[in-house]
Amino acid sequence: MDAVIGVLTISDRASRGEYEDISGKAIIEYLKEVIKTPFRIEYRVIPDERELIEKTLKEMTDSVGCSLILTTGGTGPAPRDVTPEATEAVCEKMLPGFGELMRRVSLDQVPTAILSRQTAGIRGSCLIINLPGKPQSIRLCLDAVFPAVPYCIDLIGGAYIDTKEERIRAFRPGR
Amino acid sequence: MDAVIGVLTISDRASRGEYEDISGKAIIEYLKEVIKTPFRIEYRVIPDERELIEKTLKEMTDSVGCSLILTTGGTGPAPRDVTPEATEAVCEKMLPGFGELMRRVSLDQVPTAILSRQTAGIRGSCLIINLPGKPQSIRLCLDAVFPAVPYCIDLIGGAYIDTKEERIRAFRPGR
Amino acid sequence: MDAVIGVLTISDRASRGEYEDISGKAIIEYLKEVIKTPFRIEYRVIPDERELIEKTLKEMTDSVGCSLILTTGGTGPAPRDVTPEATEAVCEKMLPGFGELMRRVSLDQVPTAILSRQTAGIRGSCLIINLPGKPQSIRLCLDAVFPAVPYCIDLIGGAYIDTKEERIRAFRPGR
Repeated sequence: MDAVIGVLTISDRASRGEYEDISGKAIIEYLKEVIKTPFRIEYRVIPDERELIEKTLKEMTDSVGCSLILTTGGTGPAPRDVTPEATEAVCEKMLPGFGELMRRVSLDQVPTAILSRQTAGIRGSCLIINLPGKPQSIRLCLDAVFPAVPYCIDLIGGAYIDTKEERIRAFRPGR
Repeated sequence: MDAVIGVLTISDRASRGEYEDISGKAIIEYLKEVIKTPFRIEYRVIPDERELIEKTLKEMTDSVGCSLILTTGGTGPAPRDVTPEATEAVCEKMLPGFGELMRRVSLDQVPTAILSRQTAGIRGSCLIINLPGKPQSIRLCLDAVFPAVPYCIDLIGGAYIDTKEERIRAFRPGR
Repeated sequence: MDAVIGVLTISDRASRGEYEDISGKAIIEYLKEVIKTPFRIEYRVIPDERELIEKTLKEMTDSVGCSLILTTGGTGPAPRDVTPEATEAVCEKMLPGFGELMRRVSLDQVPTAILSRQTAGIRGSCLIINLPGKPQSIRLCLDAVFPAVPYCIDLIGGAYIDTKEERIRAFRPGR
């Protein structure tokens, strides 16, 4: 069975069609570039509404059956930025190491990386990761954390995912 | 309108006048050294009492109108160290990247930097940052995080602050 | 009075005797190698049951009088991994710097280090630190954080511990 990977863009303006969702598209492009096992993408664009984000994450996990959801947007300090809160509310376990590493690699690019509250967590057999809003930062963060993603999904009973070794080497201990 | 910046020293002994508050003075000196836009300082010294810290932070934010509050003291593991708890209790959002970076740069100086529980968060349009107690560590931490401070305050609707570029380069994306 | 140090292995399989607890033994060996002041070890092996972990941590702290407890196992993202939750539930204060540093040093070895949710916290006059499951990673993490451990225990009123300087230099500010 193909893995289902959710791409969730959280942005008031993109959801109203005020601009093109280049962030979500950058994530989809990245996934096609690095994953070699079969998968299909569940793609959504919603506004920065906490209840709606929670509802959407639950649906993509529990009904659609995503093994991985990558969100983009809503991780900053502004009043409308509520993605990390929504993520934490639907997850049973948080994985602080993802946020720490993503902020650390982003900090080499911009000092404002410390303003990002991005995190990651587990709901059932789905890993949810918050990514930043800018395509360039998305790529940087995914390059940093993706080697650990397939094994994490193994551990929580999600779908089997493997990567193109020349691009990202998925690490599975004992292999 | 001038920005109002709060400097809050949290120390049982300094509040009883048992020693001079060199930490609070080091913060004030630092602010004068790096900020070029007009600002005034609201300075307080209080004991390590959680309720009083919360009340003071609320007052400095909601009544005095601070856009930035820098606390010093009370971030360690000792029973009387309750500054992070009080900060979290009054903030709507936490910014874990500040604590991570401040501990990381402090760790280059002393291995006990991992004992610091310092954090940062947002209350209304005010950014609250916990700094360590020692003047030398205060300077190190401020140098690390200050480039991100003015843009953070922009994002939450606080006062406009700019820095002396030769000292600290405030980073505002897209500028 | 000799310091009491708890070594708590949390593993379904080790607790059923399905394999030897090499992780707990690696911790004990490490302690004997680096601590020069007198201490005795309180050693337990229990399954990954949250309530039992909490009960055991409370007992080792409140009744046995441990000044330091080192746990191993149960810090990953799998459903049975509940050590960090149990630790947080019994602690009055969390020390995020420990987890950050242990993940950072582990990340130099394996990209899956970000999956570890290990943390540290204070209960009364006891410091509780979650270590990873693998002996090699245990040693790496202990080398990273141990210089800060004796001073932390001083601050919370636990037993005096000092290290063999040629192996680990315990840092006490002002000494």
